[in-house]
Amino acid sequence: MAGHPADHAGLEVLPLEDCLRLLASVPVGRVGFSADGEIVVLPVNHLLDGQDVVFRTARGSKLSAAEEQNLVVFEADDYKPQTQSGWSVVVNGRAETVYEDTEIQRLDRLGLHPWPTAVDRPFWIRIRPTSVSGRQIPATT
Amino acid sequence: MAGHPADHAGLEVLPLEDCLRLLASVPVGRVGFSADGEIVVLPVNHLLDGQDVVFRTARGSKLSAAEEQNLVVFEADDYKPQTQSGWSVVVNGRAETVYEDTEIQRLDRLGLHPWPTAVDRPFWIRIRPTSVSGRQIPATT
Repeated sequence: MAGHPADHAGLEVLPLEDCLRLLASVPVGRVGFSADGEIVVLPVNHLLDGQDVVFRTARGSKLSAAEEQNLVVFEADDYKPQTQSGWSVVVNGRAETVYEDTEIQRLDRLGLHPWPTAVDRPFWIRIRPTSVSGRQIPATT
Repeated sequence: MAGHPADHAGLEVLPLEDCLRLLASVPVGRVGFSADGEIVVLPVNHLLDGQDVVFRTARGSKLSAAEEQNLVVFEADDYKPQTQSGWSVVVNGRAETVYEDTEIQRLDRLGLHPWPTAVDRPFWIRIRPTSVSGRQIPATT
């Protein structure tokens, strides 16, 4: 995993295929968006559907953001203090609610396990990326 | 940890003292802010200094946000798929760069280990909370 170019902070810039693989490797990411002039960042259990990030939600601010086709950001990361290794991937894109029945049924079969609560999460949200960028801590020498 | 009131999504609402304890229990959180009309979400190694979240950064967008005293959000979470347990804490507040020498020296002694890269992270950023809220997945019965 060495040999990638570094950014201004000294972190290695990851190619798209690594970003997508890493996004799919963790069960939780965070979706960020603007709501009433405030920035909201909330964790979600997600899946990758092609290059899109998909997750389920109940009624609430995440659904509202998607229904307004808002620009959102999705971030996932992993950091292991023991080995001082870590990465983060950031997806910028537009969120949209999935309304088509056959598409909902297909997503339902992808095996997502949302955070277990007493409340149903009937809505699928899809983030169509406009950019995907990833960084990792370079291997220590 | 049971017996807290639940929010609209069925998650237990955590009291402030639990939020601060959980924030301090993980090495990485994510800071979110607006930059040039886009939402940015980036991971940072953080510490708690009283009720403030503090982290180090190099020159860049996080520092710019702090120098403009921007409203930022800080999010930390932990999710264990094995036990289906998890929590998240969100801090809203204003970011500011720490310029006072004695304060910088005090923060330097708190034992923060920022992500190791080839680039120095000479600036301390402090987030003074205006609100702290936390949620956890209720214990399954």
